[in-house]
Amino acid sequence: MTVRFGVLGAGRIGTVHAGAIASVPGATLQAVADPVADAAETVQAKYGGDIRTIEQIEGAGDIDAVVICTPTDTHADLIERFCRAGKAVFCEKPIDLDVGRVRDCLKVVEQTGGTLMVGFNRRFDPDFKALKAAIDQGRIGTVEMVTLTSRDPGPPPYAYIERSGGIFRDMTIHDFDVARWLLGEEIEAVQAAASVLTDPQIGKLGDYDSVNVILTTSGGKQCTITNSRRATYGYDQRIEVHGSKGAVSAENTHTARIQLADSDGYHRPPLLDFFMTRYTAAYAAEIAAFIDSIASQTAPPTSGRDGLLALVLAEAALRSVREGRVVKVSEITGEETSAPRAAL
Amino acid sequence: MTVRFGVLGAGRIGTVHAGAIASVPGATLQAVADPVADAAETVQAKYGGDIRTIEQIEGAGDIDAVVICTPTDTHADLIERFCRAGKAVFCEKPIDLDVGRVRDCLKVVEQTGGTLMVGFNRRFDPDFKALKAAIDQGRIGTVEMVTLTSRDPGPPPYAYIERSGGIFRDMTIHDFDVARWLLGEEIEAVQAAASVLTDPQIGKLGDYDSVNVILTTSGGKQCTITNSRRATYGYDQRIEVHGSKGAVSAENTHTARIQLADSDGYHRPPLLDFFMTRYTAAYAAEIAAFIDSIASQTAPPTSGRDGLLALVLAEAALRSVREGRVVKVSEITGEETSAPRAAL
Amino acid sequence: MTVRFGVLGAGRIGTVHAGAIASVPGATLQAVADPVADAAETVQAKYGGDIRTIEQIEGAGDIDAVVICTPTDTHADLIERFCRAGKAVFCEKPIDLDVGRVRDCLKVVEQTGGTLMVGFNRRFDPDFKALKAAIDQGRIGTVEMVTLTSRDPGPPPYAYIERSGGIFRDMTIHDFDVARWLLGEEIEAVQAAASVLTDPQIGKLGDYDSVNVILTTSGGKQCTITNSRRATYGYDQRIEVHGSKGAVSAENTHTARIQLADSDGYHRPPLLDFFMTRYTAAYAAEIAAFIDSIASQTAPPTSGRDGLLALVLAEAALRSVREGRVVKVSEITGEETSAPRAAL
Amino acid sequence: MTVRFGVLGAGRIGTVHAGAIASVPGATLQAVADPVADAAETVQAKYGGDIRTIEQIEGAGDIDAVVICTPTDTHADLIERFCRAGKAVFCEKPIDLDVGRVRDCLKVVEQTGGTLMVGFNRRFDPDFKALKAAIDQGRIGTVEMVTLTSRDPGPPPYAYIERSGGIFRDMTIHDFDVARWLLGEEIEAVQAAASVLTDPQIGKLGDYDSVNVILTTSGGKQCTITNSRRATYGYDQRIEVHGSKGAVSAENTHTARIQLADSDGYHRPPLLDFFMTRYTAAYAAEIAAFIDSIASQTAPPTSGRDGLLALVLAEAALRSVREGRVVKVSEITGEETSAPRAAL
Repeated sequence: MTVRFGVLGAGRIGTVHAGAIASVPGATLQAVADPVADAAETVQAKYGGDIRTIEQIEGAGDIDAVVICTPTDTHADLIERFCRAGKAVFCEKPIDLDVGRVRDCLKVVEQTGGTLMVGFNRRFDPDFKALKAAIDQGRIGTVEMVTLTSRDPGPPPYAYIERSGGIFRDMTIHDFDVARWLLGEEIEAVQAAASVLTDPQIGKLGDYDSVNVILTTSGGKQCTITNSRRATYGYDQRIEVHGSKGAVSAENTHTARIQLADSDGYHRPPLLDFFMTRYTAAYAAEIAAFIDSIASQTAPPTSGRDGLLALVLAEAALRSVREGRVVKVSEITGEETSAPRAAL
Repeated sequence: MTVRFGVLGAGRIGTVHAGAIASVPGATLQAVADPVADAAETVQAKYGGDIRTIEQIEGAGDIDAVVICTPTDTHADLIERFCRAGKAVFCEKPIDLDVGRVRDCLKVVEQTGGTLMVGFNRRFDPDFKALKAAIDQGRIGTVEMVTLTSRDPGPPPYAYIERSGGIFRDMTIHDFDVARWLLGEEIEAVQAAASVLTDPQIGKLGDYDSVNVILTTSGGKQCTITNSRRATYGYDQRIEVHGSKGAVSAENTHTARIQLADSDGYHRPPLLDFFMTRYTAAYAAEIAAFIDSIASQTAPPTSGRDGLLALVLAEAALRSVREGRVVKVSEITGEETSAPRAAL
Repeated sequence: MTVRFGVLGAGRIGTVHAGAIASVPGATLQAVADPVADAAETVQAKYGGDIRTIEQIEGAGDIDAVVICTPTDTHADLIERFCRAGKAVFCEKPIDLDVGRVRDCLKVVEQTGGTLMVGFNRRFDPDFKALKAAIDQGRIGTVEMVTLTSRDPGPPPYAYIERSGGIFRDMTIHDFDVARWLLGEEIEAVQAAASVLTDPQIGKLGDYDSVNVILTTSGGKQCTITNSRRATYGYDQRIEVHGSKGAVSAENTHTARIQLADSDGYHRPPLLDFFMTRYTAAYAAEIAAFIDSIASQTAPPTSGRDGLLALVLAEAALRSVREGRVVKVSEITGEETSAPRAAL
Repeated sequence: MTVRFGVLGAGRIGTVHAGAIASVPGATLQAVADPVADAAETVQAKYGGDIRTIEQIEGAGDIDAVVICTPTDTHADLIERFCRAGKAVFCEKPIDLDVGRVRDCLKVVEQTGGTLMVGFNRRFDPDFKALKAAIDQGRIGTVEMVTLTSRDPGPPPYAYIERSGGIFRDMTIHDFDVARWLLGEEIEAVQAAASVLTDPQIGKLGDYDSVNVILTTSGGKQCTITNSRRATYGYDQRIEVHGSKGAVSAENTHTARIQLADSDGYHRPPLLDFFMTRYTAAYAAEIAAFIDSIASQTAPPTSGRDGLLALVLAEAALRSVREGRVVKVSEITGEETSAPRAAL
């Protein structure tokens, strides 16, 4: 079986996904849609497929699955439309910046019996997968404490920050998902500190650039997350997991595996400094996993619920900063619905 | 000038300090006191000096300085007595487990014009000093975020835990001091999470074995501290400091600088697993710094105030855990006195 | 301009090159030839192109260049035929196991004005290129001493060893080329030691499995090469270059960038253990460089002369082992021709 | 039992040994001798003991052992005198620069039944001992190939070079001893290359500054040694041993365990750049081992024969360079005596 794909949005990440689809066995790039004709044509020239509108893809009989790479505020609508149209849907995170809207969207997914995978690329990084495998093999015993470090080489454009929902929803959201993946126990409480240290303009936009978060699970496991919008030495992406029998960590990726020694000491090159370069293999593996899940008719490895829960943690972190206290996850989930937690 | 020393308490750490005194130029070990005759004799046999009582040392004309290595609950009294007796005093941390008692003790030190150095050995570790020097040389620009990791190979005896004042006052206190040393700005707010993950008996004793702390300064700088009473791979002691221009970190100390490669991969030996082995050089440098400060009649590098402020942070962390909120340092300092913060 | 390719030989390395051609912009895979129909069909199914005979490719008007991946003993003949047919030729090393045959072949290349690139993949490895770039930027001053380490995870099949020309011509030949590339000065003298340490059967076949070589240039620069047919921990590929101002080294590639810590110490996974996995990026970059040289009508970065000189060094090393003395390169080149060294 | 020591020569290394004697339990520094009064007095002031002449020490009833730290050309004579005087003798390497003189000296040692330990400090380095222990525990199987790297931060004074016997006898001699220690099989053949690359003046003095050596044992085991009189990044001291089951290596010692990250990359401090700082622990352990051997009446761990054989290898290496061929060890040993190799 070959999965026939439509890619919605031919920007940076849409191009990456189109390339992955074109190169992975078991998939073909059938169509690409983008209001910017140039963008769509560039993808077509590189990887083939037709140029169509979103409506044409929606109604097409020759499309099995779509990859949504459009702006965030269109995600939830498109997920709903394409689930209703019977296409399997891969959507870049986040589903929406609003927890209520996400929950409504997931209801539609559920009602239509649709397939939705949310793009948390880090779970597919080869090094992080090797770390997770070591944990799953019992190499460190029971997981107890997790330390996540994510530092961006620099801030995104101000215009992006304004629409991003803030650092917790835009940047930390990846770490929230990784924390859930590694802790193996749902998170119960969140506390956070947030400052503006790298660029006062970020503060003027109502956002932060430097945050620390402590997550606690019902069993007392703890996870700390450190985020900064600045790292002069590259894109700093580290994981450290401590368990009852030992610890496992994933190290950064330098631009080259060389070392220079001179009278000033020993020198290694900086880190890869762009998320798409750092996570090239992860993006390809992510799409391959989506195709596998369609072909094998199994649930995708990262679900809509994963997308929702990462957003809930972001919301809780923001409230913790504002109110100077530990925020229970149930406070956020309870706002939207009185249903028990399993309803998430 | 030779500084003539009396060592009070001939236990583990007293022996270390006696050895340092005996080997450092500019100092002599004049006397050692310990209610356990065997202990005092062992020190004497190794490093010389008389065996005397604390009272004899207090009244002795041939003693310029003392090193207090007795149980914690005697520290404040002995500091006061020996300041009154006109001896320079080096005291192992903590001065006392109670903030009020510490403050009273420091008043006596001040009134007597005495010299007091509190033993925060980590500031004297050669690697940590090199890290601090890199910061002071401006290599990373303005300090903004600090990450401290301290994991003990295993818990102390239960009897010790019962008297220790809890993990924040006993173990994290070192990290609180290091945080203050590195942030270069007083800490304003503390939040913490604490769990019992390694041994339920620790919980029964009312203590925790796994904690994470976030400290925030008035300028928004942040520091995270991770502590655990278990590390199968040795005594885990790491510092990472991020600034506006870069970052500097201090790495762990392995038992040997060798690496084995075989079909399972690459292997390095575990870390030094005992604080006295890990910090041998630091203990010697600490005593040398005390001697220098006496000889040069300058203030010791770690003061009574440093001892007090680390304890205040421990108190704040404990309260944060109990009340599930950010605790201002001023809440702790304000409890004991209405004096402005400078009074600390 | 698009370079239209024929691939001769659809084995392991032919498949790698076909894949590179299919993915690199500016090239198309026009045809593949292999006496084993299955092999050719597998390549065609993956990367497209027709299946043709070598004769058909030789006479084809729609083929600009060929990649020769057939058995070693066919290389020289095919190079001559395709140069005469006016195709640009990329040939896997070695051109031939016999220095005289190689020299004759290169004369044909010269007479036909043909383009020949010999496949020394290591020069195209991203880490080794970064090392070379550091040298070229003057980071270590003048190059003086080079240390090359190549250890294979295990020996090739005995049948392969029998036809390989021995370890110096088969394995060390890569290091000889890297040495020439890095020393920046032609090698004048060779001395070597060789033993059978890993498998006595290799000795019965007249070959060695463990060798050390010292190369000396006219200016006294030195290079040591260590080779072994066994490395339990993976494919060990290291370079270290010392110059007047410092040193630069390229490190090995582990299967994952993770580290495990437990009571036995710190553990990292073994190295990639297969040359095609280790040098995936190098093989792609090598073909891209060949295409660039055709498109830009410049000389390929690795020439027939490079192929010849690496073989000459192998010959010299073998003679050194047999005669227990330093062998001058001129002894080997002089055997075949009395022409001055420039004639090489 | 306390071993009472006389130290002959109060220079740099004599001072180090005097300090070791003063601090090690089971030994006392009884006397120090040096024609330069200042030097002797400095040692006395630091570590106690009388100042005596060599003759006084020779005849003293209160001296059990001597440490010879005088110039090389006095070593053999002093060894003979003090063996005849019934003192246990520790002598810094080399015994003499001439193989014949060394052999004569060792005969006197044997005839007098004296105790002689030759100072090969590297065998006592904690990291190298840990490496050796891993080998002895069978962690890498049977030892097969050894790689030794020793690079000095800079050349010694020209005056020293003139008297040193050349780089092989002065510098490589340490590596020859380490090779013998690690290979566990006597070396049969030596080949070497030598150049002047760092300072032409060294060449004018008839010496080399850059050498590579290959040693081969009777069983075909191989060892390469790389030496240079220049290393801008510090004192480069590495060992790598490969066996049938894996490999073990000892890493360099940096001045601090810190790492800086900035826009240029990751930076670690240079290496310790002085042999006495790098090998502080080794010098102390070496003297402790000598004292142990006296106290326990067992043979010292490094013997006169070790001193002789390292010198023989130096001689063989020099001849190999001069004659451009592999030199058998038996050629050197046979020059001095026709006795079979066991006579060494």
